[in-house]
Amino acid sequence: MASVLRQSDPDFEQRFSAFLATKREVSEDVDRAVADIIHRVRSEGDKALIDYSKAFDRVDLVQHGIAITPAEIDAAVASAPAATVEALKLARDRIHSHHARQVPQDDRYTDALGVELGSHWTAVESVGLYVPGGTASYPSSVLMNAVPAQVAGVERIVMVVPSPDGRLNPLVLVAARLAGVSEIYRVGGAQAIAALAYGTETIAPVAKIVGPGNAYVAAAKRRVFGTVGIDMIAGPSEVLIVADSDNDPDWIAADLLAQAEHDSAAQSILITDDEGFGNAVVSAVERQLQTLPRTATASASWRDYGAVILVQDLDASLPLVNRIAAEHLEIATADPERLLAGVRNAGAIFLGRYTPEVIGDYVGGSNHVLPTARSARFSSGLSVLDYVKRTSILKLGVEQLRALGPAAIELARAEGLDAHGNSVAIRLNL
Amino acid sequence: MASVLRQSDPDFEQRFSAFLATKREVSEDVDRAVADIIHRVRSEGDKALIDYSKAFDRVDLVQHGIAITPAEIDAAVASAPAATVEALKLARDRIHSHHARQVPQDDRYTDALGVELGSHWTAVESVGLYVPGGTASYPSSVLMNAVPAQVAGVERIVMVVPSPDGRLNPLVLVAARLAGVSEIYRVGGAQAIAALAYGTETIAPVAKIVGPGNAYVAAAKRRVFGTVGIDMIAGPSEVLIVADSDNDPDWIAADLLAQAEHDSAAQSILITDDEGFGNAVVSAVERQLQTLPRTATASASWRDYGAVILVQDLDASLPLVNRIAAEHLEIATADPERLLAGVRNAGAIFLGRYTPEVIGDYVGGSNHVLPTARSARFSSGLSVLDYVKRTSILKLGVEQLRALGPAAIELARAEGLDAHGNSVAIRLNL
Repeated sequence: MASVLRQSDPDFEQRFSAFLATKREVSEDVDRAVADIIHRVRSEGDKALIDYSKAFDRVDLVQHGIAITPAEIDAAVASAPAATVEALKLARDRIHSHHARQVPQDDRYTDALGVELGSHWTAVESVGLYVPGGTASYPSSVLMNAVPAQVAGVERIVMVVPSPDGRLNPLVLVAARLAGVSEIYRVGGAQAIAALAYGTETIAPVAKIVGPGNAYVAAAKRRVFGTVGIDMIAGPSEVLIVADSDNDPDWIAADLLAQAEHDSAAQSILITDDEGFGNAVVSAVERQLQTLPRTATASASWRDYGAVILVQDLDASLPLVNRIAAEHLEIATADPERLLAGVRNAGAIFLGRYTPEVIGDYVGGSNHVLPTARSARFSSGLSVLDYVKRTSILKLGVEQLRALGPAAIELARAEGLDAHGNSVAIRLNL
Repeated sequence: MASVLRQSDPDFEQRFSAFLATKREVSEDVDRAVADIIHRVRSEGDKALIDYSKAFDRVDLVQHGIAITPAEIDAAVASAPAATVEALKLARDRIHSHHARQVPQDDRYTDALGVELGSHWTAVESVGLYVPGGTASYPSSVLMNAVPAQVAGVERIVMVVPSPDGRLNPLVLVAARLAGVSEIYRVGGAQAIAALAYGTETIAPVAKIVGPGNAYVAAAKRRVFGTVGIDMIAGPSEVLIVADSDNDPDWIAADLLAQAEHDSAAQSILITDDEGFGNAVVSAVERQLQTLPRTATASASWRDYGAVILVQDLDASLPLVNRIAAEHLEIATADPERLLAGVRNAGAIFLGRYTPEVIGDYVGGSNHVLPTARSARFSSGLSVLDYVKRTSILKLGVEQLRALGPAAIELARAEGLDAHGNSVAIRLNL
């Protein structure tokens, strides 16, 4: 079962630091293999995609085609249960509404000297979205990655998804259509990332690549970074729940397990000020684990990475909360706003007893692509800002150049950059 | 001398594509050495910093101290020419005013269903700023990196700067004081990056590392990414000037050379619609090169990477401008706003005949840390946004959970995540 840490124990700081430093991912060394795959896709294009898909996914792209056709998407939509399509539409609409509020505004102004300054935002022209195959092929993730791009005004949203043994989750095609994805290709792995970055005969290159993937995909994204933009490299999911004893232990246990079922490297942490409540949650977790279809995964996650942290009072949890910097933070107390005010580091926060994190996974409207592994200390969840970029604008007339030029010349000379100084001096006859 | 490309030539597209694909950087393979350095700093702390500084910088940190003392900074301020300090203050104040407009606002609202949503912005708690030693030790870059952090509200701004042979540019200490840097350490290279990421006895770790550096610094930043955040990896500088024939060729030549003097791998490009004007600029460049102190660097840059692109008319330059996606774009025409409207990709744009890019390097107020090597297609210059992060907030009551819960359960089941469904169902007795 999960570890128990007591803030009152004399060795708490040492144990908590060790807990924070625990690595939950084995980083496979796939960099050499990925470098070869990228090289071959750059030099051989579609032919490399066809060969790798045959070798890794056991699928013949000559027969099936690299591009997924509109007719295939039509068929996926027709085959999907109506209730699921409706739920996806609700999710899409709520994600769209929330993200529309994130579109940054241009700022153009003239300062007291008469200098015009500005920040001008434009959408990235084209984006590639990686979608994993197999059991982690989630339609909700397609919406979470593609809808903000659509809101930002990205013209070309390209999706790649492998079809191992020819199998493809039809719901990811449904989600792609709902989210305005413009092209879909039946490729995955490092070869798909290389195709998006450098292009092939069939796939035109994009400017930025987003979306989760396995070790090969992550290594390929790191390698092509610079040629294209990339999003964060996501690690295993995690939830931190701060709960008082007035919660139903079964509700909190269900939330811990919702995280644990994702991955044996997922992490679920409870912080509470009541040891009896903590024990009740642990019992409820053990009980609920019996009936879960993904019990092997959830059990391993809870056993290896789960934790119950007992604090003297919930206010004392705040420094721990901020050091954990969890991807998901639930505050299940009577007055969650009070603790919220002290939270500095978290990807997303879920307030009160009726906001299980799962609502944020699907239909809350906020994004479920969030910083993991303590990276909420320095980064944010996916948003419209990931699909736009800002250009600075500066405009001086001769008077403004007269006012500012001498200081620029002074600094250029102090830095030993004479040609810098000249470009100002020549305009002012200095 | 620089290449000349004519849009009217039949092989223009081919030549322009090759020009865009030109690599300007030799990427040294230093990754193995950097991995060793990081490992040693993690295991030996200050001792490793002392050893590496002796070996690489020929400086004894036991004698001089790892930390730079307030008294040393006082001495630097006292020794600096008053005019330079005044120019730095003007720059600092203008950077501060401009960046204050970039601070993002929290957004908390309730939607039609009664769901509360929010985006809450907080500053990164601590930031490390790398400052190179030697000739590229620029006080202006200290201001450009540190002032936005100060505006964002970063509590701990830590600077590291090597002192090869014990020498340190006193102006970087002056700039650090003006910009609110809270700690300065006399270390550089991969060892300084490792110290910032993992901490030593003397240097507490930070959450994010920014600032330019050599191949070792860049490789170290890539390696520690994830443990801490990093900014972009900056390449050699570049300017693209779109100019009509009404400009003084000497002014435009001066601007091209201001970029070329930075680095032999810097790039200066002129686009014009008048071949005679283009020739006049080329002659002016050759003439001005004779008298520049950094003529060797500037000549090499102009010879190897400089270019003049002749277009039929300036409107026809826009597709080229957007493909080049330059770090700096000058539009030196009578009506620069007309072309501006068609620019999609650029780090910073300088409008009109009296806005040489150099103003933006120092005292314009906008940031001079900008995306290089065509990365303006997908990224932005440094801003306050690089020092803050956004947390999503979600809050439902029982009624909102009743409204949204069934769709979440539907999607959880469609994705095979039963525990996800349970955490909603258990609260609704479903």
